[in-house]
Amino acid sequence: MVFVHLYLGNVLALLLFVHYSNGDESTDPGSQRRTQSPRPVSTLGPLTRLEGIKVGYERKVQLVTDRDHFIRTLSLKPLLFEIPGFLSDEECRLIIHLAQMKGLQRSQILPTEEYEEAMSTMQVSQLDLFRLLDQNHDGRLQLREVLAQTRLGNGRWMTPENIQEMYSAIKADPDGDGVLSLQEFSNMDLRDFHKYMRSHKAESSELVRNSHHTWLYQGEGAHHVMRAIRQRVLRLTRLSPEIVELSEPLQVVRYGEGGHYHAHVDSGPVYPETICSHTKLVANESVPFETSCRQVPPTPVPLTPGNLGSFCPQVNLWECLQLGTRSEAPLPYSYMTVLFYLNNVTGGGETVFPVADNRTYDEMSLIQDDVDLRDTRRHCDKGNLRVKPRQGTAVFWYNYLPDGQGWVGDVDDYSLHGGCLVTRGTKWIANNWINVDPSRARQALFQQEMARLAREGGADSQPEWALDRAYSDARVEL
Amino acid sequence: MVFVHLYLGNVLALLLFVHYSNGDESTDPGSQRRTQSPRPVSTLGPLTRLEGIKVGYERKVQLVTDRDHFIRTLSLKPLLFEIPGFLSDEECRLIIHLAQMKGLQRSQILPTEEYEEAMSTMQVSQLDLFRLLDQNHDGRLQLREVLAQTRLGNGRWMTPENIQEMYSAIKADPDGDGVLSLQEFSNMDLRDFHKYMRSHKAESSELVRNSHHTWLYQGEGAHHVMRAIRQRVLRLTRLSPEIVELSEPLQVVRYGEGGHYHAHVDSGPVYPETICSHTKLVANESVPFETSCRQVPPTPVPLTPGNLGSFCPQVNLWECLQLGTRSEAPLPYSYMTVLFYLNNVTGGGETVFPVADNRTYDEMSLIQDDVDLRDTRRHCDKGNLRVKPRQGTAVFWYNYLPDGQGWVGDVDDYSLHGGCLVTRGTKWIANNWINVDPSRARQALFQQEMARLAREGGADSQPEWALDRAYSDARVEL
Repeated sequence: MVFVHLYLGNVLALLLFVHYSNGDESTDPGSQRRTQSPRPVSTLGPLTRLEGIKVGYERKVQLVTDRDHFIRTLSLKPLLFEIPGFLSDEECRLIIHLAQMKGLQRSQILPTEEYEEAMSTMQVSQLDLFRLLDQNHDGRLQLREVLAQTRLGNGRWMTPENIQEMYSAIKADPDGDGVLSLQEFSNMDLRDFHKYMRSHKAESSELVRNSHHTWLYQGEGAHHVMRAIRQRVLRLTRLSPEIVELSEPLQVVRYGEGGHYHAHVDSGPVYPETICSHTKLVANESVPFETSCRQVPPTPVPLTPGNLGSFCPQVNLWECLQLGTRSEAPLPYSYMTVLFYLNNVTGGGETVFPVADNRTYDEMSLIQDDVDLRDTRRHCDKGNLRVKPRQGTAVFWYNYLPDGQGWVGDVDDYSLHGGCLVTRGTKWIANNWINVDPSRARQALFQQEMARLAREGGADSQPEWALDRAYSDARVEL
Repeated sequence: MVFVHLYLGNVLALLLFVHYSNGDESTDPGSQRRTQSPRPVSTLGPLTRLEGIKVGYERKVQLVTDRDHFIRTLSLKPLLFEIPGFLSDEECRLIIHLAQMKGLQRSQILPTEEYEEAMSTMQVSQLDLFRLLDQNHDGRLQLREVLAQTRLGNGRWMTPENIQEMYSAIKADPDGDGVLSLQEFSNMDLRDFHKYMRSHKAESSELVRNSHHTWLYQGEGAHHVMRAIRQRVLRLTRLSPEIVELSEPLQVVRYGEGGHYHAHVDSGPVYPETICSHTKLVANESVPFETSCRQVPPTPVPLTPGNLGSFCPQVNLWECLQLGTRSEAPLPYSYMTVLFYLNNVTGGGETVFPVADNRTYDEMSLIQDDVDLRDTRRHCDKGNLRVKPRQGTAVFWYNYLPDGQGWVGDVDDYSLHGGCLVTRGTKWIANNWINVDPSRARQALFQQEMARLAREGGADSQPEWALDRAYSDARVEL
């Protein structure tokens, strides 16, 4: 039986909670802060970026002392590379072992009641909502226009069938053509919709992300293999040690049989501490640095269709809104993703880049009424590029374009990627996200503050890594 | 009436004349010379390459003192940019005026008798030739496999209709399906083919390139506008002054109504003096530098299907062979092309990049039995990218990829471009080709030798620019 997972409701709910710190910050990063900063800020050198040359180009690199590695260009859009044998089989097994000792948690939980609660106090009219959703301005809501709103959603993944079932259940589409006219949309009673949503529980296969994961510490005092991998990534990326060391810890992910991760872009950091380190510095630079800021809630600001337009000009309402709720201050960017395959997968589990090296990028052309290329359970075979998991192989890519001044610029839409359905066996991977602040000056300030903290012994006192420290001498027993 | 222009004959003829200096030289440039060189060779810095960022990206640059210019990214494959107002209208008019005073010549003359003469002494059997032409190894010659051999040909441009007419005239394809089986090909009497070829004269519209051109000197003592443009190009490209100054003079081209240039890649230099400057240095470094080497003919070496395969592995037999005849030594590369539009064209005359930003490049997929995307008289509308001529606008692109070590690497197949049919009025353009030697060490040596020559006053004595010097104070009377 198919459950229905329409996320319109969640989108609406978020409208109430979103706070916009500064809509233009990302296009002109740091200009404000730079002048306000009371402390001298050192300037950072240009962000390194490997040359792609062309698809299939191979270069030899020395990442470890005892062997050479070859970096192969897989695509230019996104700038994507593959390095076979980046990790040894022993290292792969050790990472899995450490993750298992630490324990993995579900990567995504189902939407909570707070969303539904918020729905009842909406400030956006049904007409305004229709206009926001009607991307092609033809006065009708195509299935794909509704599908477009699930991307990166925290909740359930929508398929065209889900939407049509819901329409049918709440009688939203009397003529059954899958398209809602403004009249049909206006006639829809959102309470029916909420009721329908509550009555259908999603299974894990119906989520955006169906996996378990944990985080492994890679900082000072970590397991020597974790340190060695961080150093290897440093040599691979040719970035400064500060940037790599201050990025997120290693995320280890297990996809069971039936696991998947629908296509998304790694635009922001996923580990809250990393966000908050940056955020704190920006929000109030005189406040002493704190490693965690989960306790600081975002300030709710009413959102109107008027200010929404300027903040969320793109089709991706959901992603934009979700980003808005994360923090009051601009987030650091996931400049690069380094993904490690920790085992050979018996069936499926490829990493797909649906639009890699496409001539043009058009978000809406990804999503057709029948085929949604972001759907990694159904349509991986139609994506432009698939990487097959092979134990020890690493792939890495740049989620952001350069800004032309040696720093990070706009997100690279072509970096859209996902984890295909694991049809047989288990898939283990790990991710290193290299975070960079969109403001060069703020990144410099962040590094400066973190260095000060380290000198003052603050780094050692981080309580969340106690478990990792206990395992720092762990070995794999085979 | 359509004339038939089959170039199989020319290809065959060339088989006799081709000399291969060193098939591997281009993949491992300069390694030999570097060790043999008796003189100390300075190392050159990395070749600058503008970042494309993404299609539509604009950057402001200061190329002249009195205004800003904007460089807009048109494509990433090839790396292609546009700069509106790069030349003033007065500069455009002056260039046209200088070119007219100097006089323009036909850009392409019809194939001479030497080709036909050579046909009779072929050393490649008809069976071997069939195998060379049969790209997809299906034992049959499709129209497109024959069409593929005209690219960059010095002679007539082939269309599918031309070939079918020829087949019909010499009864080569009895079943009239446009495909030659090995049997049909073997039955063909090449003498009939030659006879047919001689009986059909090509019109200028049936050539690869239908235009007139001349060269304008830009070196020391040239017209101040010509000097200013060279300096502006230097600032635009951010290359070293030596590289830009030692590149080819400005080519000014006039396309009359009906003019065109079928799609090609600017792989090598087109001005003989530039080739020979490099060649001389390489062929015998102890010989004093000479500015012209037209008198040195290529040494004819018999070509067999065996050595052909290793030298010409790609479909483009013609281009490869033609390159082979040019010189005994490796040629400098046309690293960049800077193209200036000198007037507004009433109808047509766009610059087309048929495969710009294609996901993949496949030469044979360009050429279908019915549609040949390289044909700029018929199929410009099907190309990926077209630039409309606008007086004063410059476009520039890189014909070569980087090699990953800061120097020039492989040719960029995506740089394929042509001049669309001028349907109304006249089109005036100018080209600056920036030449770079594939060997970094040889480029250094070349620059060193040219500097020495300049110190010894040799540069001033070049006789071929006497006319340009006479016009160095020319003005346009309006």
